[in-house]
Amino acid sequence: MRVGPSCKLFFKSDPLKIVRASGSYMYDEEGNRYLDCINNVCHVGHCHPHVVSAATQQMAVLNTNSRFLHDNLVLYAERLTALFPPKLSVCFFVNSGSEANDLALRLARTHTGHRDVITLDHAYHGHVTSLIDISPYKFNHPGGDGKPDWVHVAPVADIYRGKYTDKDYTIEQLSEKYADEVKMLCQKSSKEGGRVCIFYAESMQSCGGQIVFPPGYLRQVYKHVREAGGVCLADEVQVGFGRVGSHMWAFQTQGDDIVPDIVTLGKPMGNGHPVSAVVTTREIAESFGATGMEYFNTFGGNPVSAAVANAVLDVIENEKLRENATEIGNFLMQEFRQLQKKHELIGDVRGQGMFLGVDLVKDRETREPATAEAAYINKRLKENYVLLSADGPYRNVLKFKSPLVFSLENAKELVSKVDSIMEEMKQVEHCVNGVVEQNGATEKPSSKSKKHTQWITK
Amino acid sequence: MRVGPSCKLFFKSDPLKIVRASGSYMYDEEGNRYLDCINNVCHVGHCHPHVVSAATQQMAVLNTNSRFLHDNLVLYAERLTALFPPKLSVCFFVNSGSEANDLALRLARTHTGHRDVITLDHAYHGHVTSLIDISPYKFNHPGGDGKPDWVHVAPVADIYRGKYTDKDYTIEQLSEKYADEVKMLCQKSSKEGGRVCIFYAESMQSCGGQIVFPPGYLRQVYKHVREAGGVCLADEVQVGFGRVGSHMWAFQTQGDDIVPDIVTLGKPMGNGHPVSAVVTTREIAESFGATGMEYFNTFGGNPVSAAVANAVLDVIENEKLRENATEIGNFLMQEFRQLQKKHELIGDVRGQGMFLGVDLVKDRETREPATAEAAYINKRLKENYVLLSADGPYRNVLKFKSPLVFSLENAKELVSKVDSIMEEMKQVEHCVNGVVEQNGATEKPSSKSKKHTQWITK
Repeated sequence: MRVGPSCKLFFKSDPLKIVRASGSYMYDEEGNRYLDCINNVCHVGHCHPHVVSAATQQMAVLNTNSRFLHDNLVLYAERLTALFPPKLSVCFFVNSGSEANDLALRLARTHTGHRDVITLDHAYHGHVTSLIDISPYKFNHPGGDGKPDWVHVAPVADIYRGKYTDKDYTIEQLSEKYADEVKMLCQKSSKEGGRVCIFYAESMQSCGGQIVFPPGYLRQVYKHVREAGGVCLADEVQVGFGRVGSHMWAFQTQGDDIVPDIVTLGKPMGNGHPVSAVVTTREIAESFGATGMEYFNTFGGNPVSAAVANAVLDVIENEKLRENATEIGNFLMQEFRQLQKKHELIGDVRGQGMFLGVDLVKDRETREPATAEAAYINKRLKENYVLLSADGPYRNVLKFKSPLVFSLENAKELVSKVDSIMEEMKQVEHCVNGVVEQNGATEKPSSKSKKHTQWITK
Repeated sequence: MRVGPSCKLFFKSDPLKIVRASGSYMYDEEGNRYLDCINNVCHVGHCHPHVVSAATQQMAVLNTNSRFLHDNLVLYAERLTALFPPKLSVCFFVNSGSEANDLALRLARTHTGHRDVITLDHAYHGHVTSLIDISPYKFNHPGGDGKPDWVHVAPVADIYRGKYTDKDYTIEQLSEKYADEVKMLCQKSSKEGGRVCIFYAESMQSCGGQIVFPPGYLRQVYKHVREAGGVCLADEVQVGFGRVGSHMWAFQTQGDDIVPDIVTLGKPMGNGHPVSAVVTTREIAESFGATGMEYFNTFGGNPVSAAVANAVLDVIENEKLRENATEIGNFLMQEFRQLQKKHELIGDVRGQGMFLGVDLVKDRETREPATAEAAYINKRLKENYVLLSADGPYRNVLKFKSPLVFSLENAKELVSKVDSIMEEMKQVEHCVNGVVEQNGATEKPSSKSKKHTQWITK
């Protein structure tokens, strides 16, 4: 063992050794080609030549820190802020989404003078100490220490599987009910003397199971939080840079009037190169500057990182990847909804652009999550050279978040293979350790296993 | 303003716009060449072709995360751990020294089950929330919140300017006295019911003013801390990878028997590329793994970062940069000690390899720090195309930490220019805003300013 055992592999019983990748494909050491529906980091396609070339050229000329002026950094800062509402005008450059979210928390604390954080259930914001504290995905899971007293967890506005669902309420009611939960936490925080510092949320929740908030949700939440003296953060680390298609940032899907006070960016920003950012208002940046504490990040915003980030924006624009995300995303939504008519297993299809979730259920009425089935499908997809993962609190949501260059042909391949595997699952009663036993196999399935077929993958 | 105002530039009144760099030189947009004594990140020389080539080649083929197996990562992990005592056998890969130090803290907390941290005065371990908490360089400075109750600050074993100095004690006594301070903090922590988790220190203290601990110090400290149930960390982010010349890691200069439980690596590891690591024992890694909490770092240990880190090790070995650090470092020490004989301003010359400090004093007896003089010298050096900085609590220590390819010719240039500037300073009485006023200038210096000449640089 040379690498820490806490570092988990995909497909850990039979991990993949990928040796090269290009566009939306990854290749293993035997030359097998896999369709990549997993990598939301290599955003403009694996090893995009324009990005590689920008990195290569800059690396050979200069790579130093931001204590020296450099055009790449200034150019990128101007270009990036131009993609945001005017109020969001100042950037800080860092190396990872975790560094961005940690800095965002410091900015908010300094600006508001408050401490309490409202986070959403199942949220994940990063792996450093301060972010594990505000990530229920971590602190409520094995090895977690539970939540600190200054963290308040609101139920995530998941209208299919959350505290309030579309079984009982209209969309308008759901927005209000979920926003009211945040309002109540603001009141609780004030009552306990903590005072709200920040509402911390991904604009669409990723690890929580590809959750799209009902329209109007953020508008009401931001209002409640600001009335309580807090600021509002949009974590766009997973969902930003055009993944949702219609807009550059996922928070914009909630309305043109929705303007967070702080936005954090990460994964796709450098197409795999470690570069991330915080974008905020002049007021918040000035509050932070006024303390006199210097912020220095050794690698953050270096000329190579800035060149790479610039090149990624070039590709998004030149190859019209937002438009592609919309087109392919719409196609996939429509096709998965067709599959839903055929396969009882599919309880819900949701998302936007190239951020999609297919929520698998054992029973459409109870919406009981079909966790083992999701694992089985991903295992069979891998055997069929398609890489897909599952997430959400029950790991029953097929999570599509491919590079944005995913093509119509790629989309057809994915849908067709999912369809075949679901068909195949109808033919079998029992599946143990990935060995599919057909009807009439030696071991007779019990009546219980007929009703709730067990899909076991190790 | 597009970039946060808390991000500080070098030479902020007249910042440098560097457009390219090579070896130990940086070039500004007008083509001026600067000798670089500042950049400890571009460790094997700016834009080293072997490193650039390794990055370029890997970037074009594959850059994905460590959820897929990759030879580069495994190869590097084996190669890196082989450079450590056998006990230090497991690595975690991250993107920055801050991420490494944050993870180290989590490892120590999980392994010991304790909370209290013993840190050294003036220490800096990173910019994320958890590390500001243990960095007096941050929490005691403007904008800092002071120290949390679980942090205990030991006086740094600075035998020239610290709590105990070579004016009053022998080296052996100094080691013991400073180590006893740590012992007392262990006792204090236990008495208060906190229990010691970790002793957190750079192996030589960088921001604190290029401090070299007296021989035997770490041996005694490690003993006290381990007896109290804590683990010992060596932060090698600034001083590792052969900078000290005689050894690969600065902790090794304290004796072959000195083995930390956790080592953190950063800045020089990728020659500017964002890659860092934590190296620890199997026991600590297993304690962390046993909690069940996954550790995933999006960019950490990706094939490009690993290729770059491998290439940096190649260059250190192939170009015998450790040997160069020793040779040039010895030459610089000897030359600065010669200058010390000529210039009263030089109170102390210390360090090892390419980690050197020249401590400037207004008075050799009182050792009053010559802060303005240090700023003036660096300003004049810059005007003479040499980049050097000052650090330490009084910012009076000239801090030499060049790329390891610094040559004998470079060293001679540095010494000669420092000598000339110090000569020049003897000729003047008063220096305001960098405008040197010669004796007999219109404004007569007061008798006070004669004794304590004011060197003011904006």
